[in-house]
Amino acid sequence: MPAEKIDGKFISTDLRARIKDEIATLKESHPSFSPKIVIIQVGDRPDSSTYVRMKLKSCAEVGIDGELLKYPADISQTEMMQKLDALNKDTSVHGVLVQLPLPPQLDEEAITNAVNVEKDVDGFSELNIAAVFKKNSKLKIVPCTPKGIMYMLDYEKIPLEGKTAVVCGRSDIVGGPMSKLLEKRGATVTTLHSKTTPEQFKFFLKNADIIVSAVGRVNFIHGEDVKPGCVIVDVGTNYVADATKKSGQRMVGDVDYESCAQVASKITPVPGGVGPMTVVMVLHNLLQTAKEQSHL
Amino acid sequence: MPAEKIDGKFISTDLRARIKDEIATLKESHPSFSPKIVIIQVGDRPDSSTYVRMKLKSCAEVGIDGELLKYPADISQTEMMQKLDALNKDTSVHGVLVQLPLPPQLDEEAITNAVNVEKDVDGFSELNIAAVFKKNSKLKIVPCTPKGIMYMLDYEKIPLEGKTAVVCGRSDIVGGPMSKLLEKRGATVTTLHSKTTPEQFKFFLKNADIIVSAVGRVNFIHGEDVKPGCVIVDVGTNYVADATKKSGQRMVGDVDYESCAQVASKITPVPGGVGPMTVVMVLHNLLQTAKEQSHL
Repeated sequence: MPAEKIDGKFISTDLRARIKDEIATLKESHPSFSPKIVIIQVGDRPDSSTYVRMKLKSCAEVGIDGELLKYPADISQTEMMQKLDALNKDTSVHGVLVQLPLPPQLDEEAITNAVNVEKDVDGFSELNIAAVFKKNSKLKIVPCTPKGIMYMLDYEKIPLEGKTAVVCGRSDIVGGPMSKLLEKRGATVTTLHSKTTPEQFKFFLKNADIIVSAVGRVNFIHGEDVKPGCVIVDVGTNYVADATKKSGQRMVGDVDYESCAQVASKITPVPGGVGPMTVVMVLHNLLQTAKEQSHL
Repeated sequence: MPAEKIDGKFISTDLRARIKDEIATLKESHPSFSPKIVIIQVGDRPDSSTYVRMKLKSCAEVGIDGELLKYPADISQTEMMQKLDALNKDTSVHGVLVQLPLPPQLDEEAITNAVNVEKDVDGFSELNIAAVFKKNSKLKIVPCTPKGIMYMLDYEKIPLEGKTAVVCGRSDIVGGPMSKLLEKRGATVTTLHSKTTPEQFKFFLKNADIIVSAVGRVNFIHGEDVKPGCVIVDVGTNYVADATKKSGQRMVGDVDYESCAQVASKITPVPGGVGPMTVVMVLHNLLQTAKEQSHL
């Protein structure tokens, strides 16, 4: 029996509608409630422009006021910090998102940490990261991709406690927090990474009830690698040549969907899986910060 | 061939001597260099008094000025925060250590976080925790027990990269950072915890090249559970009845030493393993903060 597809597009559309409803209701009961996000883009990377456009469009759709601040690629660290300081102080702004990556002259870590922890809708600042990692800490703002994956798993009612999970990748914004969030829900998690040997990959993948792959390599996981009945979440966004497409390429994940779908019980597609969940979680985080700052 | 004992007492004595030498040298070249730690003890728990006494004695031995501030068990949160604020501002104090646990009226997390990150020699504050967890963050102050274990493993020249490690326990100050520190050095780490099933424990333990156990249960790991040639670090401090001792009890770890020593290649004893390493790392962290604050 082929695996059931976890439809991130459907789940995110459903969540987006709920967010829209909640914002509309709040605006009605509290006429001064006016959730607003500011997105900062430095330079003109086309991929960044696409992401920023997508985020602003989504915001508009649910009733979040979105403003784009575009700065030249050669902006100095000092100027960036001043801009952020002003936004941190501006009470009409509930969320500040710095589109990454930044040009090399800028200190990405310092800038990420300069966003007020209450407005950090990406969840990338140190204090938000620490809250994810600390066992007894109250979660503050959770980074969008792992948050979106947890939402999908819960939506699909996939049990986590007592299960074995493998997270491929250990980045600060996906793999690292993902492992910790699964662990906090009672899964026993192994994080696989660039220093993990092929034999170890084989061993841990084959034993996992839940697999989250965020390594960015095409055809990284095959059906023969995984345990029958497992759940696979594919975070990969890789591009392969495809002459049938106008752009000459198409997006694929880390997972060989065809063969894995023969073995797994549930699996996310690429595109239409994790991607749309990540975008809607920006809205979810912004609604959270706007409510907090408006004492609602 | 029985396992080689990893002698934490010896390694910590050796490190303590190095710290003492470095402080003496620094005092000679910089006569104003006067490293100082303040330990805060709230109430009169006998175990806390023992630990505090031990730490102060160790400080004195290496040339660190130690001061104990003892507060009544009913001190208020506000008063505690004021005391910490004063210590944070006091430039003659390079490290502040709040002996845990605290009485129930006090908010342990808020108090731990109130210690200036530069003086947090326990490494328990959010920003220090975040630095351990973030992949690309420069490590600041690492909590003493995991830091001590890493030092021991390095002292014994135990390879970590490409190895499989299991950490039993996921506390914020031992298991959590331990897993991350091993991962940062290239090990593939599985963290086992209270929701891990017995079958999962069996499976992961048997496959691990390195085992760190911090669960606080007597006879938790036996020789038959582990992989031949593995390295075992026992963080457990449990007490069992022993009529031959004056106190009527003796301290044991999580690991059944006798049977494990028949299978492992190296193993830490209890006592005399991790315990003395943890104490000496307070000194190591204090020397680090004192040097930083004195711009040395």
